[in-house]
Amino acid sequence: MRKYTMGIDFGTLSGRAVLVDIATGEEKATSVCEYKHGVMDETFLTDEKLPPDYALQHPVDYLDVLHFITKDCIEKSGINPKEIIGVGVDFTASTVMPVLEDGTPLCFLDGFKENPHAYVKLWKHHSAQKEADAINALAKEMNAPWLGQYGGTVSCEWMLPKILEILKEDETVYNHTARFVEAADWIVWQLTGKETHSVCTTGFKAMWNEETGYPDKAFLKKLDSRLANIVGDKISTNVIKLSETAGYITEKAAMETNLPMGIPVAPALIDAHAALPALGITNTGELLMIIGTSTCHILLGDKKTEIPGIAGVVKDGIADGLYAYEAGQAAVGDSFSWFVENCVPQAYYKEAKKLDISIHAYLRRKAEKLSPGANGVLCLDWWNGNRTPYVNSNLSGMIFGLTIQTLPEEIYRAMIEATAFGTRRIIELYEENGMEIHKLYAAGGIAEKDRMLMQIYADVTGREIHMSGTAEACAHGSAVLGAVNENGYETLPIAAEKMKKIKETYFVPNMENHKVYTALYGEYKSLSDYFARDENTLTRVLRRIN
Amino acid sequence: MRKYTMGIDFGTLSGRAVLVDIATGEEKATSVCEYKHGVMDETFLTDEKLPPDYALQHPVDYLDVLHFITKDCIEKSGINPKEIIGVGVDFTASTVMPVLEDGTPLCFLDGFKENPHAYVKLWKHHSAQKEADAINALAKEMNAPWLGQYGGTVSCEWMLPKILEILKEDETVYNHTARFVEAADWIVWQLTGKETHSVCTTGFKAMWNEETGYPDKAFLKKLDSRLANIVGDKISTNVIKLSETAGYITEKAAMETNLPMGIPVAPALIDAHAALPALGITNTGELLMIIGTSTCHILLGDKKTEIPGIAGVVKDGIADGLYAYEAGQAAVGDSFSWFVENCVPQAYYKEAKKLDISIHAYLRRKAEKLSPGANGVLCLDWWNGNRTPYVNSNLSGMIFGLTIQTLPEEIYRAMIEATAFGTRRIIELYEENGMEIHKLYAAGGIAEKDRMLMQIYADVTGREIHMSGTAEACAHGSAVLGAVNENGYETLPIAAEKMKKIKETYFVPNMENHKVYTALYGEYKSLSDYFARDENTLTRVLRRIN
Repeated sequence: MRKYTMGIDFGTLSGRAVLVDIATGEEKATSVCEYKHGVMDETFLTDEKLPPDYALQHPVDYLDVLHFITKDCIEKSGINPKEIIGVGVDFTASTVMPVLEDGTPLCFLDGFKENPHAYVKLWKHHSAQKEADAINALAKEMNAPWLGQYGGTVSCEWMLPKILEILKEDETVYNHTARFVEAADWIVWQLTGKETHSVCTTGFKAMWNEETGYPDKAFLKKLDSRLANIVGDKISTNVIKLSETAGYITEKAAMETNLPMGIPVAPALIDAHAALPALGITNTGELLMIIGTSTCHILLGDKKTEIPGIAGVVKDGIADGLYAYEAGQAAVGDSFSWFVENCVPQAYYKEAKKLDISIHAYLRRKAEKLSPGANGVLCLDWWNGNRTPYVNSNLSGMIFGLTIQTLPEEIYRAMIEATAFGTRRIIELYEENGMEIHKLYAAGGIAEKDRMLMQIYADVTGREIHMSGTAEACAHGSAVLGAVNENGYETLPIAAEKMKKIKETYFVPNMENHKVYTALYGEYKSLSDYFARDENTLTRVLRRIN
Repeated sequence: MRKYTMGIDFGTLSGRAVLVDIATGEEKATSVCEYKHGVMDETFLTDEKLPPDYALQHPVDYLDVLHFITKDCIEKSGINPKEIIGVGVDFTASTVMPVLEDGTPLCFLDGFKENPHAYVKLWKHHSAQKEADAINALAKEMNAPWLGQYGGTVSCEWMLPKILEILKEDETVYNHTARFVEAADWIVWQLTGKETHSVCTTGFKAMWNEETGYPDKAFLKKLDSRLANIVGDKISTNVIKLSETAGYITEKAAMETNLPMGIPVAPALIDAHAALPALGITNTGELLMIIGTSTCHILLGDKKTEIPGIAGVVKDGIADGLYAYEAGQAAVGDSFSWFVENCVPQAYYKEAKKLDISIHAYLRRKAEKLSPGANGVLCLDWWNGNRTPYVNSNLSGMIFGLTIQTLPEEIYRAMIEATAFGTRRIIELYEENGMEIHKLYAAGGIAEKDRMLMQIYADVTGREIHMSGTAEACAHGSAVLGAVNENGYETLPIAAEKMKKIKETYFVPNMENHKVYTALYGEYKSLSDYFARDENTLTRVLRRIN
C-alpha cells in the first residue's frame, strides 16, 4: 500500500490542499479555493466602511474552503482515502479569532454578526499599532526577558496587540470571548475536536517561549488591569511541540472532509515556515526566502542569539532541538503590484495586450535588457515600511536617480533590485550575529514566476540560489510534517529528506554584475541607515502630514 | 496717429510676434509659427543619429518664421505698418551659431550642409559638459575675476563651452567660422544689417562684463592655445547697452518682413529676461518667475553681490544702472510631462478622455482635492539636475514617502510642491545674500495654465503672487524695449510703466497651508543639502552606472 499525507495551506486570499506520496514526495493532486469574503479591508460585509488599516476575514470562508479543498483534492487524486495516513495544516499568522469555549467563532452568534471586532483579524490588519507601541514601551520599561527574542520590537501584526485593540475598543466582544486563538490552531481544532496551540504559532506570534511561557501576570496587569488573568483564562497554555501529534480526525471532520477518521493531525504551522521541510531544510545554515507579496527569511541555528530587528527566534519552532529564526521584508510583490497599477503608461498595457502577455511579463522583457543598476535608478524597498532590520512600519518607499529620460522599466527594475538589496541586508545581519549561511533557497509565488528577479537576487547576493521544486511549498511542507507520526516517519528530518522537492536547475551569480551591485548596495545601505535613524525627522513629518 | 511696436520672441519650438500699442500696452495681434525642423536631438536632418545630449536647430527655420510672423502679425492687426515705430527681439540663449563675415550661417554652405557642428547649438544642447568642466577647473585655478559673477560655475549651456566643443571635435568648422554669435543677436543683425552684441546675451552667456570684458587672453590661451585670439577675431567686442539702438530696419529686411524701413531695432534680449518689462518690472525688489519647462527667477538689485549658485549677475543686463540677477530651476514643466508620459495609469487617460480634458487637467482635479503635503509624499525636483543653488546637472529627481496606498495624483502634487520648494529656496538664497524681495510676479506657460500650481507657490512661499496680464510676456517685453527710442519713450521704466500688463487678480497665500509647507520645506532643504554635499557618493555612483 502506498501512503499519502495531506497538506492544507490557508493563504491570504485562498486555501489549498495537496496530497503527497510520502515515499517519493510526488504530489498526486492539488485543490485551490478562494475565500468568498476575501479580505475585508475597506468595507465590512456589504456596506459599512471600515477604519484605516483594517483587514478582517470571515471564518465561514475557512470552513467552506476546508471542506471543499479536502474533498476535491482526494477526488482529483483518484487514490483510496484509506491510504491517507496523516494531515498537516498551515495558515497565515498572526491571524486571530475570538471564539467560544467549544471553538464557535463569536461572529456566528446573533448580537455579534454585525460587529467587526467579533471577526477574524488577518495578519495584515495593521490598526493595532498604538497597542503594539504601548506593549513595546512597557516591555522596555519592565525589561521584559522575552523582548530580545523578537529583535527588540513587538509587531502590531501579532496576537497581543490585536487582543488589546479589541479590549480597548469593544469590551463586550472581549468579555464574550472564551478563547483567542490563531486561525492555524483553530483549523487543527476543527479537525481534531481538541484545542491545541503549536510552538510555531505561539512562539512566533504570542511571545511564548519554553523557559518563561507567555508574558507574565505583572506585565499583563500593568499593560491593562483587565488582562491580568488572560493567560489560562482566554489564552490556552496547552502549547505542543511539532514532533507531537495535535490530535486525530474526528467523525464529524471525517464526514466534512472525506479524510479517514482517526488519522493523526500535526500541530499547526505558520504558512511561510511550512515551506522549509518542503525543500528538505531541517538543519542549520540553509536560508529559505519565501518571496511573495512580502518575503520571509527563515534560518535554523543551533544557538539562541538576540538579533536586533529580526521578527523572532523560537526554540523547536520548526525542527526539534534547533532555533528557528525569522526575518522579513514587508513589501515585495505588493510593491510591484502597486507599480503596475499606478505607474505604468497606457502604451505599455496596449503593447502587452497585443503580445498577449501580462504587464509584469512585458515590463520584465524590457527590464531584462537593462544593465544592473537600472540606468542609475535606485530605490529603498519600504512601500510597507521596513520589517528587518529597522522594524518601523512608518518608513516609506523612496526612488532616487530620476531624470526626464527615466523609463518605467528602469523604475520597475530598480524596485526589484531594491528588494534584492533588502535581502542581502538580512543575510548580512544574520552573519554579523554569528549565524552561518552556506546555502540559499527560494520559494513562493514571485520566486516561481520571475526568473529575472531570481537572477538579480543571485547577482546581488553573489550566491547560488536553489529553487523549490513545488509551486505549493507551504502545503507540501505541511504534508511533510503530517507524515511525522506513528503511521509515517519518526522524525521531521527523515520525512523531509524523503519528501523534499528541489528543482535541478539553480541560479548562478554573474560576478561582474555582483561587483556593480556591491557599489549600489553600499549606497542602499547608507541611505537606509540615514533615513531609518531616530534623529531623521523625514518619516515623522511625512507621517504627520498623512 | 497711434504708435505701435513689434516684439519678436524666438522660443524653443516656435517663434511669435506681437504688435503692441505703446500708449496702452494693448496687444493688437499675435502670430505664431513653429520651426519646420524643430529640435534635432535624436536624429540629424533625415537619418543620421546624433550623439547623446545634442540639441541642434536649423537657421533656415529662424528666417522662415521671422518672415512669416512679422507679415502675418501686421496683416492680422489691420493697422497701417507706418504706425510701427520700433522693434524688439528676444531669443532662447545661449543658442550659438557659427556664421561667415556677412552673417551667413556656415551650414548654408556646400561642404557644411551635412555637418552637425555647422548648425545651431540650442540652449539645451548639453554635450559640452566636459568642456564646461575644463573651463571651471581652469577658472578656479587661475582665480578668474569673473567666476563669482556666475555663482562660481560656468554652465555647459553657455557660449564658450559650445565653441570649445566645436574646436575640439571639428577644427574645420571652427576655422571656417568668422563669427560665433548668439541667435538673438543674429536676428537683430538680419533686421539691421549690422552685427551687434547686447549686454544681456553677452553678459549672461559669454562671461562678458563692463569692467573686464571677456575672459582674457591668458585664460583663453591656457584653455586651448588655438583660442588665444578668439576675442576680436571670432567674437565681436561690439557690446551695446539696452538703452542704445542696435540699428535700423534695412530695405531688404523691410521687404522680407513688411516692417517699415528705417525704424529702430532694440538690442537683443534673452527670452526670459524680456518678460520683466512686460510686467512693468524695472526696479529692485520685484522677483519674476518665468515658469515653463524650466523656471527662471530674475531680480534687479542696486549692487553687485556674488551669490553662490546663481546663474549670473549682469550690470545693466535689463535696466540701465541696475544689476540683473538670474537663478533657475532646471526641470519644472519638463518633469510634469515626464510624469504623465511615464507614470500615469491607463484608467486615468480613459477617464480624462471621457471628460474631454487633458491628462494634466484630470490629474489637477484629483490633486486639488488633496491637502498640502500630498498625503505624505515629498520630492526633490531634480529631474534635470539642479541649477540654483547647487549648479550640478548630475543630481537627479527623488521621491520619498511612497506606500502601496500612494496614488498617481499624490506623486503629481508632490512634484509640483517640490518645484515650489525649489523656488522658495531661491528666494531665500537671494535674501540671505542681502537682496530685498518685496513682491513676487509670475509669467510663462505653466503659470498661465495651472492655477493649482500658482496657489501652491503662494502657499509655500507665504507671499502674494501677481500674474502677467499677457500670455506672450516675452514678446510683449521685447515690444516694450522696442518702444525705447527716438520715436517712443526716453527710458525703459517709462515705457514699461505705460505698456505693462498685469492681471487684476492675484494669488493670496493660505497661511494655514503655509505652516504645513514650512515643516515639509525644512525636510526638503535638509534632504537637498544631504544629497548635494560633495561627500555624498550617491550621485556619483548612479551617474557611473548610467
